[in-house]
Amino acid sequence: MKITDLSALLDSIAQGVNQGGPPKGRVADYIPALAAVDPSQFGIALATVDGEVIGSGDSDVRFSIQSVAKAFALALCLARDGEALWRRVGREPSGNPFNSLVQLEYEQGIPRNPFINAGALVVIDRLLAHTGDACATLVEFLRLEAGDSTIDVDLDVARSEASHGHRNAALAHFMASYQNLDSGVDVVLDHYFRHCAIAMSCRELARAGLILARHGIRADGSQLLTRSEAKRINAILLTCGTYDAAGDFAYRVGLPGKSGVGGGVLAVIPGRGCLAVWGPALDKHGNSVAGVEALDRFTTITGWSVF
Amino acid sequence: MKITDLSALLDSIAQGVNQGGPPKGRVADYIPALAAVDPSQFGIALATVDGEVIGSGDSDVRFSIQSVAKAFALALCLARDGEALWRRVGREPSGNPFNSLVQLEYEQGIPRNPFINAGALVVIDRLLAHTGDACATLVEFLRLEAGDSTIDVDLDVARSEASHGHRNAALAHFMASYQNLDSGVDVVLDHYFRHCAIAMSCRELARAGLILARHGIRADGSQLLTRSEAKRINAILLTCGTYDAAGDFAYRVGLPGKSGVGGGVLAVIPGRGCLAVWGPALDKHGNSVAGVEALDRFTTITGWSVF
Amino acid sequence: MKITDLSALLDSIAQGVNQGGPPKGRVADYIPALAAVDPSQFGIALATVDGEVIGSGDSDVRFSIQSVAKAFALALCLARDGEALWRRVGREPSGNPFNSLVQLEYEQGIPRNPFINAGALVVIDRLLAHTGDACATLVEFLRLEAGDSTIDVDLDVARSEASHGHRNAALAHFMASYQNLDSGVDVVLDHYFRHCAIAMSCRELARAGLILARHGIRADGSQLLTRSEAKRINAILLTCGTYDAAGDFAYRVGLPGKSGVGGGVLAVIPGRGCLAVWGPALDKHGNSVAGVEALDRFTTITGWSVF
Amino acid sequence: MKITDLSALLDSIAQGVNQGGPPKGRVADYIPALAAVDPSQFGIALATVDGEVIGSGDSDVRFSIQSVAKAFALALCLARDGEALWRRVGREPSGNPFNSLVQLEYEQGIPRNPFINAGALVVIDRLLAHTGDACATLVEFLRLEAGDSTIDVDLDVARSEASHGHRNAALAHFMASYQNLDSGVDVVLDHYFRHCAIAMSCRELARAGLILARHGIRADGSQLLTRSEAKRINAILLTCGTYDAAGDFAYRVGLPGKSGVGGGVLAVIPGRGCLAVWGPALDKHGNSVAGVEALDRFTTITGWSVF
Repeated sequence: MKITDLSALLDSIAQGVNQGGPPKGRVADYIPALAAVDPSQFGIALATVDGEVIGSGDSDVRFSIQSVAKAFALALCLARDGEALWRRVGREPSGNPFNSLVQLEYEQGIPRNPFINAGALVVIDRLLAHTGDACATLVEFLRLEAGDSTIDVDLDVARSEASHGHRNAALAHFMASYQNLDSGVDVVLDHYFRHCAIAMSCRELARAGLILARHGIRADGSQLLTRSEAKRINAILLTCGTYDAAGDFAYRVGLPGKSGVGGGVLAVIPGRGCLAVWGPALDKHGNSVAGVEALDRFTTITGWSVF
Repeated sequence: MKITDLSALLDSIAQGVNQGGPPKGRVADYIPALAAVDPSQFGIALATVDGEVIGSGDSDVRFSIQSVAKAFALALCLARDGEALWRRVGREPSGNPFNSLVQLEYEQGIPRNPFINAGALVVIDRLLAHTGDACATLVEFLRLEAGDSTIDVDLDVARSEASHGHRNAALAHFMASYQNLDSGVDVVLDHYFRHCAIAMSCRELARAGLILARHGIRADGSQLLTRSEAKRINAILLTCGTYDAAGDFAYRVGLPGKSGVGGGVLAVIPGRGCLAVWGPALDKHGNSVAGVEALDRFTTITGWSVF
Repeated sequence: MKITDLSALLDSIAQGVNQGGPPKGRVADYIPALAAVDPSQFGIALATVDGEVIGSGDSDVRFSIQSVAKAFALALCLARDGEALWRRVGREPSGNPFNSLVQLEYEQGIPRNPFINAGALVVIDRLLAHTGDACATLVEFLRLEAGDSTIDVDLDVARSEASHGHRNAALAHFMASYQNLDSGVDVVLDHYFRHCAIAMSCRELARAGLILARHGIRADGSQLLTRSEAKRINAILLTCGTYDAAGDFAYRVGLPGKSGVGGGVLAVIPGRGCLAVWGPALDKHGNSVAGVEALDRFTTITGWSVF
Repeated sequence: MKITDLSALLDSIAQGVNQGGPPKGRVADYIPALAAVDPSQFGIALATVDGEVIGSGDSDVRFSIQSVAKAFALALCLARDGEALWRRVGREPSGNPFNSLVQLEYEQGIPRNPFINAGALVVIDRLLAHTGDACATLVEFLRLEAGDSTIDVDLDVARSEASHGHRNAALAHFMASYQNLDSGVDVVLDHYFRHCAIAMSCRELARAGLILARHGIRADGSQLLTRSEAKRINAILLTCGTYDAAGDFAYRVGLPGKSGVGGGVLAVIPGRGCLAVWGPALDKHGNSVAGVEALDRFTTITGWSVF
C-alpha cells in the first residue's frame, strides 16, 4: 500500500472510533492520575521501516505508556544479558492472572515472562546492574529512537503508582526471598514505577518501536539486538504482550504487541513498520478497547498479519 | 527459494540429525506401543501451496500423530461451530502443566484452550454432536487432504492409550460435572483415544496441514474455514500448540505449530506451505528434540518465520 | 449430669429448634432423593458409654447418613491396615475446597485426609482389598453396633448419587492415574456411592458411634481399634470432620465430629458417650444448621467440650 | 497424678531425650542467630492451674520463642476485638504451605488463620491499632504472666529476622494491597519480627500459658478472655498450631499446642495446666523433634489428652 493510502486508512479508522456512542470500556482508576484522563481521546500512528511517520486523531498527545515500557526495557536488557537473561526470567505465557503468585512460588521465584509485573521487576533489576540507572537509560533510549529529547517520566503518575504499589512490592519482596533480585527492593520498585510513568505520543511510540520491526537496528543505524534477539522479543510480545488476552489479540490483530493500562498499544509489523494506538478506556483484561479495535481493522484491511 | 534448493535443504537437515551421537531426549514410554519406537528415525517433509511435496529421511514412515490430530479436530469443529465454540473452550495459553486441573476448577470446567487435553475432549464432544462419529469424520478428512485412503487409526495404540487413560478420564468426568460435555464420558474418551492414535507419515501430514497455510481452502479447492477462522487456528497454534514450550517454539521456529508425543510436529508457513517433521525422542515438554531442531534450522536458513 | 437431666436437655433443645421461624439453610439439592426431604424435621440422640440411649424429636427417623459413613469406614480400615494406611492417605486438614484437585496433583495422588472425598475413595479401596465387599462389611458392622439388623443402603439414593457422580469419578480416575487405587475405578465408585446412601436414625447413629467414645471397644465388648487408633480417629474428626468449617466446629462444639450432606452430625464425647443430631437444612459449608446449633447448646450447657 | 510423680516423669522424659544418639532433626538455619544454638539442649516444664511449676533439663534456659508468641498475641487481640477479629482473619486450617499465597489471593487478602504468618501479621496490626505498641504490650503481658520482669526481645534475633524477612514483607504488602493492614507495612513488620524474637525459658512459657488452661483467667486473677474466647483459642491451637503437622500433633499429643522454629512448643491441658518443652532441632514441618516426642510420652503416660 502507498503511504497516502495508509494515511487515509488511519484517518478513516480514527474517524470511526467512538462513532457508535461513548467509548466502551473503563479508564484505569486505581490511581487518580490515570482516572482523570478523558476517555474519548484517540490517536493512531504508523512508522514505516522506510522512515515515514503518519498519524491521525490525537496522535501527538502524550499519555502514560505504562506497561508498553516493558517491551523497551526488555530490549535494552536482552542486548546486555543475551541468553543469560533467561536464567532469571522465563519466556512462556503465564496463564491467567490468578496464577501470578502461585506460579512464582511453584517456580521458585522465577517469573514466567518479562511482561508480567514480576518479570518486569527482574528486567529492571538487571538493567540496574548493567547501567546503574535503569529508568534514565530507558528514557535516554526512547528520546533517541523517537527523536524527541523532551520525552520524560510523569512524576505525578510515578508517585501515584508508588503509593498504590503494595502488590508490586509484594512481588518484589517475594522474588528477593528467592534471591532473584540483586538490587534492593526499594530501588527496583522506584525505577519500575518511574519507567511505567514515561509519557509519549503515538507518533513517538511508533518511531521508537521501529527497532523491533527492523530486527534490532536503531534509529541511528547501529545494531542494538541481533536479528535473533529481536525475533525473540517479537515472539514474546505475541505470546505474552497483552496480559491474559494474548490469544485473542493474536487472532484479532495477528501482530506482536504490547499494551499498557494507560490505553496505549504498540504493534510490530516485522519488516514493515510499527503501529501505536491510544484510547484510554480499557476492557476487562486491561487492553484499550478502541486501540485493539483499530488494530483489528488496520490488519484486516491491509492483510498485514503474521498469520 | 526454488523447490530444488528446498529439497537439498531438507536432505541436509535430515543428514545432520543424530550426527553428533545418539538422539537426545526420550521416547514417550507411558504406553508400550510408543515406547517400542526406534528413536533414531527421522523424517521431514514440506508441502507448498503450489502443490509441491518434498521429503527427506523417513518421510514416508507412518507414526502415531497423537496431539497433532488436535489441530485438525479443531479445524473441523470450528468450521461447524464458528464463534459459538468459544463458549465451550477458551483460546488462551494455559501456563504450566501444574495448573491444568486447578485452572479447570477455577474457570468452572471451561478448558483454557483446545490443545490442552481437557480442551481437546470438548472439541471431540462438539464433533460428536455435529457428526455422530468424531473419529471417522476426522480420518475421512485426513485421507482426502493427504490424498491417501489407507490412513487409519492404529487400534493397538488406541487400546493402549485407553488402558492408561485415567488422567484423561478424570478430566472428562470433571468437565461433565460442570455440564461441559454433551455426549457420555465414555464415548468422548473412546473417540479421543482413537483420534490420537491415527498414523500418518510426514508427507501425508504436511499435505493435510496445507489447509491452514491456504487459510481454509481444502485440497479439492472447497473452503472449509473462513480466512479469519484459519488465522484464528494459526494464532492458537502459535500461542498454545507446543505444550508449555509455546514461547520457546515461537522464538526458535517462529511458526504456528502443533506437536505430539509420537514425535511429530506440524508447522504452518502461512501463505507458503506446511512442514511436518518426525523424531520420536522428546524433550521434557513432550516435543520432539530432533523435530524442533530441524524446524529451527529450516526457518533460520529460509527466513520463513512470521517474526 | 444425671440421665434424666440429659433427657430433659435433649427435649429442650429439640423444642428450641425452628422456634424462631422456618429452618435456616438449604436442603442438599444436587440429587432429587435428598432435595425432597422435609427441612423442618429434627432429631437428637445421646448414647452413653454406660449403655443408656436417649433421644428427642425425630430421633427414630432414618435419614441418609452420607459422609458420616466415612468415620466408620475409616475405623474398619484402620483396624485392618494400621499405620500402613497413612502411606495411601494423609491425615492433615485440607484447607479450602478450592484446593481439592490441586492438592491431589501437588501431592501426587495422595489425598490429604480420609474425609475429603478423594480420601474416602481410598479408604473404600482399602476396605475392598481387605474384605472383598466394602459396603456390605460396613452395613454389617453398623447393624451390630447399632443393634438393628434392618439398617441398609437406600438404593434410590445410591443410584441418584451415581448418576450425579462425575466429580467423584474424576477424583477416582485421577488417583488411579497415580496408582493410588488398587480395585477398578467403577467398583470403588459403586461401593462409595452405596456406603454414602446408608440410612440410619439418630439413635442408631449415636449407638454405633460409641466405639469411638469407648476408644475402640465394640458393642459386644471386643476391641476393634487400639486406644491409640481410636484417639487418632477422634483427632482426625476434630481437625477434618466438618469440611471447611472444622475450625469453627472445633470452637462452637469442641468435640470430634463428622457431618454429612443428609443433615446428620455425629459427635464423640471421649470417655462419655456419643451424640447424633439431624436437621436436613445445611449451611454453606454443607453442615446441618440445626445440628451444629443443637450440639453447640448441648456442650455449652453440659461443659462437655474437649477444650 | 501427684506433683512429685509428675516431677519424676519430667526428669525421666528429659533423661530419655537424645539417649539414642545425637538429636534428630535440624536447627533452624535461615538466620545466624538461630543456627548457632546447641541442638543437644532440652528443657521441659509443667505449670498447673493450682500454681505448681516444675521443670527438668534446661528448663531455665531462655530461647527464642518465635511463633509461640502468636498464641499470646492472639489472646491479647481477641480480648480487645472479640468476634470482630474474624472479619480480618480466618480460623480454619490452611492446608499445606504451598497454598499460603494462592490462598491469600483466592480469599482476597484474608489469611486463613492467626497462626500462619499472614494471619499473625494481621493480629499484630490489630494490636497496634488497639495499643499503639504491639510488641511492648505483649512483652509486658508475658512478664506479668510468667512473673519475671527481665523477659525481653532478643534484638540480635529480631534484626536478623528483619534482614531475612522478604517473604513476610511480601505477605504484608500483599495484604495491604487488599486493605487488610491499617498500620504501615514497615511498622507491622517491625513489631512482628520483634515479637517473634522474645526470649523465654520453658518454666516462664508454661506459666504464661496457664491463661489458656484457666480459660482466660490471668495470673493476677483478673479475666482477660471469656471462657468461650479461651476455648476458641484452644480450638485454633489444636487445628492450626503446629504448621502443616496439626493433624499429626493432634494425634500424637492430643492437646492444643503452638510450636516455634526456635524449638519451643507450648501445650495446653484445659483445666489442668500447661506444658512447655524446648529442643532446638526441628523436623521438616518446623516442629521440635525432641519437643513433640516429649509431649507424646507425657500425654501417653498421664492420659491427659483431650481425646
